[in-house]
Amino acid sequence: MKVSLIQQEFKGNKKDTVKHTVEMIEKSNGELVILQELHQNEYFCKCEDTKYFSYAEDFEKDVKFWAEVSRKKNIVLVTSLFEKVMDGIYYNSAVVFDRGRVAGKYRKTHIPDDPGFYEKFYFTPGDEIEPIDTSVGKLGVLVCWDQWYPEPARIMALKGAEILIYPTAIGWLMCPEERLDELCEKENNKQEKEKMLNAWISVQRGHAVANGVYVIAVNRVGKEKDESGCLGGIEFWGNSFVFGPQGEEITRGGLKEEIIEVDIDLENAKEIRKIWPFFRDRRIELYECIKNRYC
Amino acid sequence: MKVSLIQQEFKGNKKDTVKHTVEMIEKSNGELVILQELHQNEYFCKCEDTKYFSYAEDFEKDVKFWAEVSRKKNIVLVTSLFEKVMDGIYYNSAVVFDRGRVAGKYRKTHIPDDPGFYEKFYFTPGDEIEPIDTSVGKLGVLVCWDQWYPEPARIMALKGAEILIYPTAIGWLMCPEERLDELCEKENNKQEKEKMLNAWISVQRGHAVANGVYVIAVNRVGKEKDESGCLGGIEFWGNSFVFGPQGEEITRGGLKEEIIEVDIDLENAKEIRKIWPFFRDRRIELYECIKNRYC
Repeated sequence: MKVSLIQQEFKGNKKDTVKHTVEMIEKSNGELVILQELHQNEYFCKCEDTKYFSYAEDFEKDVKFWAEVSRKKNIVLVTSLFEKVMDGIYYNSAVVFDRGRVAGKYRKTHIPDDPGFYEKFYFTPGDEIEPIDTSVGKLGVLVCWDQWYPEPARIMALKGAEILIYPTAIGWLMCPEERLDELCEKENNKQEKEKMLNAWISVQRGHAVANGVYVIAVNRVGKEKDESGCLGGIEFWGNSFVFGPQGEEITRGGLKEEIIEVDIDLENAKEIRKIWPFFRDRRIELYECIKNRYC
Repeated sequence: MKVSLIQQEFKGNKKDTVKHTVEMIEKSNGELVILQELHQNEYFCKCEDTKYFSYAEDFEKDVKFWAEVSRKKNIVLVTSLFEKVMDGIYYNSAVVFDRGRVAGKYRKTHIPDDPGFYEKFYFTPGDEIEPIDTSVGKLGVLVCWDQWYPEPARIMALKGAEILIYPTAIGWLMCPEERLDELCEKENNKQEKEKMLNAWISVQRGHAVANGVYVIAVNRVGKEKDESGCLGGIEFWGNSFVFGPQGEEITRGGLKEEIIEVDIDLENAKEIRKIWPFFRDRRIELYECIKNRYC
């Protein structure tokens, strides 16, 4: 199966950004096409501002729009949208379309809150970790911060997910010139930046091995200023990737916009699980502690 | 704190092997010294033969011996011994000594059974995942096959382990000349070998990131023939390593015997957990499925 990862930058407004995304989808050759986290807009969680809730008002319209894109191109399409369900409840939702039909939805369950990533202000945490059945396989769609947790990855695999998919928006904090303090300096240190990027790759690569599944992350690129002026903004680090069921790197993007395309073989993952039978030997009677905050 | 990883080969019999290990310990400079899995003997699980149970008969004597080694050198010493508790119950036990005293014991909980690694024949699974308190910190000692599982790593971290330590015996299957069949050929393919080694490294590196802890594995080296003649034997792949709490590679050994020494800074891991606060955001109410075989 051919998979296309659309790694892109924000084009200044929703209209131009969506137009560009659709053009990239048109150029792509995948049966399964994956977009990055909150791909319609800038990554607005760089600061806490109520004005951004308006982005969620068009959720129903957005769903119709992307359904139509997936129908026209005859693809399975993983999108990432800002969903309003009522005043005061907003989700960071990955909606999956299967050749025109809504196949399912995953609402981000693990929500970060760190300088430049103020997501707890915007997003109600989702309460379900369920794979989504599509014509190309059972997709374990999770979102960004979820990727740092072995638990949702494991749960998706135990529920039959054949691929883990993470739409993502992650990058390095940029320093505003007037605030070159210690934290900023540390963030701007080349070695520290590499460490962060590698940590992000490593933890997901680990999920691939532990669960004998393909793992795909699609990340944003480009620099986005923090409009509040409190922080400098974020330089999204791209590096969208596909790892195989032994953690082998199948492809990895760079720091620029690109369509990353690979063939993956889901049958291969099934063979791997026969000779690396980790699921067989889990000691579930000893895992109670995992359901606690700490033990 | 300085840590020494003793990566060694089997010297033909227990006496010579232990003598060599003690010499390596004498040369080492770590306050914490870690030995590989079942370091006193050959890796006998290459075939199923009742004669090897005799290796567990001297467990009490072995404990006294290694306690004395740790007392003399004034170190914390992680050993890996074959433990008999009664006829029919034998454990693969990591015994940790703290300057002469037994600090604690971990009995391998996840037991493999694959061609060349017939451990279910020999080992009763341990029923406790608990870190061991020592004068150099709280050690999350696990053993080999455990390393492929995010659950024991997570449990150790939730229970306060500051370092995960995996004594290990893993390698590539060697082909007997008379049996160059397809499985053997696959095992001997250079690319497949790299994939396996990298999978082993990747999954443990993932534990370091997910849990913000140091991860140390000490693996055996050398080729050991399968005495039963059923399989060719195992070429143990060494590559003992230390990863930091962001998954950064601090050191990695090669395919030969060596004492690998590094300084690690446990305070650093504490700082990392402040800015990468994964433990804060776990969604424990959604993790029930992890306690099931499958969901």
